[in-house]
Amino acid sequence: MIDMGSNRYGKSAIRLVRIQRDTTPHRIWDLTVSIALDGEFAASYRDGDNSDVIATDTMKNSAYALAKEHLTTSIEDYAIAVGRHFASQPKVQGADVFVEQHRWQPIGTSRDAFVREGSFTRTALARIGGDSLDVQAGIDGMSVMKTTRSAFAGFPRDRYTTLKETDDRVMATKVSARWEYERGAPIDFNATYDAVLATFLDTFADHDSASVQASIWIVGKAILERHAAVESISMSLPNLHHWTVDLSPFGLENDREIYVATTEPHGLIEATVRRSDLAAKRL
Amino acid sequence: MIDMGSNRYGKSAIRLVRIQRDTTPHRIWDLTVSIALDGEFAASYRDGDNSDVIATDTMKNSAYALAKEHLTTSIEDYAIAVGRHFASQPKVQGADVFVEQHRWQPIGTSRDAFVREGSFTRTALARIGGDSLDVQAGIDGMSVMKTTRSAFAGFPRDRYTTLKETDDRVMATKVSARWEYERGAPIDFNATYDAVLATFLDTFADHDSASVQASIWIVGKAILERHAAVESISMSLPNLHHWTVDLSPFGLENDREIYVATTEPHGLIEATVRRSDLAAKRL
Amino acid sequence: MIDMGSNRYGKSAIRLVRIQRDTTPHRIWDLTVSIALDGEFAASYRDGDNSDVIATDTMKNSAYALAKEHLTTSIEDYAIAVGRHFASQPKVQGADVFVEQHRWQPIGTSRDAFVREGSFTRTALARIGGDSLDVQAGIDGMSVMKTTRSAFAGFPRDRYTTLKETDDRVMATKVSARWEYERGAPIDFNATYDAVLATFLDTFADHDSASVQASIWIVGKAILERHAAVESISMSLPNLHHWTVDLSPFGLENDREIYVATTEPHGLIEATVRRSDLAAKRL
Amino acid sequence: MIDMGSNRYGKSAIRLVRIQRDTTPHRIWDLTVSIALDGEFAASYRDGDNSDVIATDTMKNSAYALAKEHLTTSIEDYAIAVGRHFASQPKVQGADVFVEQHRWQPIGTSRDAFVREGSFTRTALARIGGDSLDVQAGIDGMSVMKTTRSAFAGFPRDRYTTLKETDDRVMATKVSARWEYERGAPIDFNATYDAVLATFLDTFADHDSASVQASIWIVGKAILERHAAVESISMSLPNLHHWTVDLSPFGLENDREIYVATTEPHGLIEATVRRSDLAAKRL
Repeated sequence: MIDMGSNRYGKSAIRLVRIQRDTTPHRIWDLTVSIALDGEFAASYRDGDNSDVIATDTMKNSAYALAKEHLTTSIEDYAIAVGRHFASQPKVQGADVFVEQHRWQPIGTSRDAFVREGSFTRTALARIGGDSLDVQAGIDGMSVMKTTRSAFAGFPRDRYTTLKETDDRVMATKVSARWEYERGAPIDFNATYDAVLATFLDTFADHDSASVQASIWIVGKAILERHAAVESISMSLPNLHHWTVDLSPFGLENDREIYVATTEPHGLIEATVRRSDLAAKRL
Repeated sequence: MIDMGSNRYGKSAIRLVRIQRDTTPHRIWDLTVSIALDGEFAASYRDGDNSDVIATDTMKNSAYALAKEHLTTSIEDYAIAVGRHFASQPKVQGADVFVEQHRWQPIGTSRDAFVREGSFTRTALARIGGDSLDVQAGIDGMSVMKTTRSAFAGFPRDRYTTLKETDDRVMATKVSARWEYERGAPIDFNATYDAVLATFLDTFADHDSASVQASIWIVGKAILERHAAVESISMSLPNLHHWTVDLSPFGLENDREIYVATTEPHGLIEATVRRSDLAAKRL
Repeated sequence: MIDMGSNRYGKSAIRLVRIQRDTTPHRIWDLTVSIALDGEFAASYRDGDNSDVIATDTMKNSAYALAKEHLTTSIEDYAIAVGRHFASQPKVQGADVFVEQHRWQPIGTSRDAFVREGSFTRTALARIGGDSLDVQAGIDGMSVMKTTRSAFAGFPRDRYTTLKETDDRVMATKVSARWEYERGAPIDFNATYDAVLATFLDTFADHDSASVQASIWIVGKAILERHAAVESISMSLPNLHHWTVDLSPFGLENDREIYVATTEPHGLIEATVRRSDLAAKRL
Repeated sequence: MIDMGSNRYGKSAIRLVRIQRDTTPHRIWDLTVSIALDGEFAASYRDGDNSDVIATDTMKNSAYALAKEHLTTSIEDYAIAVGRHFASQPKVQGADVFVEQHRWQPIGTSRDAFVREGSFTRTALARIGGDSLDVQAGIDGMSVMKTTRSAFAGFPRDRYTTLKETDDRVMATKVSARWEYERGAPIDFNATYDAVLATFLDTFADHDSASVQASIWIVGKAILERHAAVESISMSLPNLHHWTVDLSPFGLENDREIYVATTEPHGLIEATVRRSDLAAKRL
């Protein structure tokens, strides 16, 4: 009458750095890796039987060992290799490998000195289940701002509405985005990543925004139009609100110039833009 | 050919404190509230049409205003009231209201002085969609430890396995748990919360653990057996690893006495224990 | 013409857990230890000469090894033992050992199961230099609130002042406090700690507050009056502002009932209350 | 017999954004401002007399109002203006204004779209007391790494030393640095900042490191040699340790290639490099 429902387990926050010194500049792979498995693990819960439980310590070891051979081209390729390693084990039905890449850039023309590029984290997710392989790439923690050409008006007003309509506000958000690649397509993960990122930034810069929602659509649509390998893109955009400070008590004007930036509370918009034949394809 | 996929939006991190001074001691409600709506909002994305977009600023105002009337008995009742308010608006199909309660306790016998009880946060989620109402209660951030009677052995060994089997390790985790109440059942949310929490702690203290997985089952099963109103419980348990320090280079013995506590990397076990007729009931 | 100025170095964030199983309940020491040394280390900077540089890795090892013998009574005694170990090394002139104790309490009557008590962290600092030994004990991260009997009025008003005077506000703060013990006095560190903490909480609860500043004085003075071994106490108190929400646009009254809690920006009051003969004594 | 010791108070975490739209690209000033005053405030503690206590809310208002006129050239100039405003008030003897600048860069050639540059935060501190004005500029949170040409050897070995000597390790740290400008010298704060930062990075990249201590000296000395307006520089450098992973159990070699990055525990080196006549000058 009482049973196990869905369950998965794995190892998170594996901090792995690989340094390749045979290039100029040296190459730094600075990753945080998380592995999660699902499968026929009910016995480990119900009976305390660990005979099919790959120790999460073994997962950690595997991540380091597999980096030696497979972390050479892209974090997507590495995530796929790690995922396949685990998906082939007994009782495992699905393996998710999520990789965050912390980016470093050489200092000037130095071969061996680097500064961390903190504007965003590049992410990759390889999801392997049975015969299927899905790959997602993503941006995490990239703050962007439009200082003009952003409006928010025409929204309904009820008893609890006090927000004024505006045709010129500051729009800022910290981007968390993931896009899914077409299954089985041959993809140059690094070149495609750079191209999608460029489209994201260009479109964000170029468009006039009627709302965060409208911006998601415009940016997402552009990415799908320009990058055939991208099947869908999901974004989670917290509003980093900038409120105009009332300086009138001090006899000062403030025509959209001095703002207070706040993080609590914040609007949060989460949405996916996708090809409309995506569901059909997957069947 | 390009279309909107799933989407939702709302307001997060609404910090709301209500103080009731007509009791001894005073009563403090210290909450962080998040609201998320889904519904027919595609036009706001595709056309920049905000005519159905309840401003997230309005959501914030509503959370404060509704607290005045509805934040009197439990955070579950408040979450339900806020959720119903939004679920009844045009174009809204579902409303999720998530409440975190930061707990304060009186200092001694004081009527008006309090210290924050930081051992965990109580949470509630009201999920309203069409005619359905689901309520979940939860524990967040409660660190627990077993100093003995915890083992991990019998796991498979492969090329990458170096972990030793142990019949006596320290088990520690930071509990994140949510349990779902039976739909439509009359529930005293505060009394039931206290009772479920007590069962959680008692069972955690009493059992011998063969693994984190086995502990989830034992604790979850006890909660379902003792609390008829609980339909299922989900836990997300990061291992707070405690590794024995090798003191032999210093000529010292260390028989499970001195440990280093680490957070990176950590095992992460996520699982649901449920009544086996749950799916059937929901149809 | 260019020279070294003040400098110190050490190891921070040493996570050390000791478990003693010969008592009921078991005893958990869960510490974060930081060690900092100063002395004649200029050569290590100017000449890259490491011959006097105790490796910070050695400091970490020492912290674990010394825990075996010395972490038995109080974190103060342990900090003193670690400090003395380093202060006796060549070229070391001063050693600071700072210990944070994360507190656990048994679950019910359990011997071996614990829940972390998150209301505050106990701290100790042993500062050893030449023949001197100073010991400080402290409270970190303890949030306290007065729901009434707190005022703030009579402050000067200038062109930039908009704050209204109030005779009944919510006062809340996250306490960071450290008190210094009389040099050379025989002190029961655990009993004294509990007594000082009790005086802090009692006095905080009992007094009427004219400002955070006035509260610091009242609480600090009580501690010095009641605890002869305490020479001085320093507090750093961020205001956790609670602002009354304006509900009048919604036709609702709000007589000090519904508040928004904020952390940015916050007032910050830092002050020391001390015996007036303290400076003289130290000469 | 009990008295007030040192004390100061102020407002922290004032989030202030100014946007200037009369340039291409627009100019974003994104600041976190903290103000702290000391002076004759003992009465506010001992007597609850607020008649000289500038409300911290007034400080916040002043920061916004003064930004309108004074936040036009550099954060140093703004900090000085805010500091002078408060230092001239009755009973104030010293004013510290600390400013963190969160940096944004235009997206491509866009006039009004920006991405946050997260590699580091620029800081400024204006310290005003009586007739004196001290200005410090700083770098916060800049992670840098040397992938080779970093050693650590020749350190003393005692009973607790297990660290191996190395002539080729990875050195990484998160830089927190502040340099002090010559009093009264006319300084172009932005140009000097960029020049000091360039020297920091160039010297870090160029030198061979015998230890973090030696690196501090080499970098600090270069900055003082090349920038006459800099009187001293203080650095706080946590070691971001990178430990070679033992892959031998898996039959793999690891010749300084695969590392685990850790943050707990970490070495912490804090030191000042200064002109040797600095103390004399200040008299």
